[in-house]
Amino acid sequence: MGPILTSLLYIERDGKYLMLHRTKKEHDPNEGKWIGVGGKFEADESPEECAIREAREETGLSVLRPVFRGIVTFISDRCPTEYMHLFTAADFTGELRDCDEGELAWVEKSRVPGLPLWEGDRIFLSLLAEGAPFFSLKLVYRGDTLVRATLDGRELAV
Amino acid sequence: MGPILTSLLYIERDGKYLMLHRTKKEHDPNEGKWIGVGGKFEADESPEECAIREAREETGLSVLRPVFRGIVTFISDRCPTEYMHLFTAADFTGELRDCDEGELAWVEKSRVPGLPLWEGDRIFLSLLAEGAPFFSLKLVYRGDTLVRATLDGRELAV
Repeated sequence: MGPILTSLLYIERDGKYLMLHRTKKEHDPNEGKWIGVGGKFEADESPEECAIREAREETGLSVLRPVFRGIVTFISDRCPTEYMHLFTAADFTGELRDCDEGELAWVEKSRVPGLPLWEGDRIFLSLLAEGAPFFSLKLVYRGDTLVRATLDGRELAV
Repeated sequence: MGPILTSLLYIERDGKYLMLHRTKKEHDPNEGKWIGVGGKFEADESPEECAIREAREETGLSVLRPVFRGIVTFISDRCPTEYMHLFTAADFTGELRDCDEGELAWVEKSRVPGLPLWEGDRIFLSLLAEGAPFFSLKLVYRGDTLVRATLDGRELAV
């Protein structure tokens, strides 16, 4: 099986991120975790096309000019390798509606690290908060435990 | 068949790019074209790991700190969809050696647009020359003809 390509988008407003609490999908590797909105590339989509479509499907919002912030190479002993294309977006139109993959909530950015998150998500959320330039982050998990993280080829302490 | 993930690297020195004239591989969709060095991701590689490995295999050079410049979503009626991860690198060590995929040559950047190139390559080479921030470029080809180009979601004239 080949790698999985996904886009993950953090929509922002008034110092908050639109977070999805993954509680509704069966057999969801993200169950119970809070993440951004997103999902797998469809055929021939560019990363930003996928981010915009997924945002529309999962939130009802039309995102304009998503900003491409980084790529996460996600390696796990439990799932196929995934390349996550990470975006933020402050520009959008439309009304929020329910999502069939979990509960959507606007969460103060400062409170996000206190939520149940994947360990490695704290790393990239912190890079986003710092306004880091485009980054490539490689995360290696054993189960739910982050065992290795590499930022632009440089090993991070985990 | 799933999409193909590749890295493409332009090594630079003294105002020149290290270009590969693809003349040696059989059934090479790039035959006769000049491109950077690079190739397909191996299992679990991050984009920069692939770029560094391919540079070593194709040129003998050890590239340090490649700079991730953009992603190209390459759509064609002749090949599977390809996501090309585009890097430049000014830091490297080692001695250039022959490449079994074509002839390597240092070419003045100003002369590169005069070489036989894929049409869309001129777009991203121009973005690299301008020092554009990280970009996502989608290129749609019919045969060798570029029929559509989209930069960060905005249509370009082709």
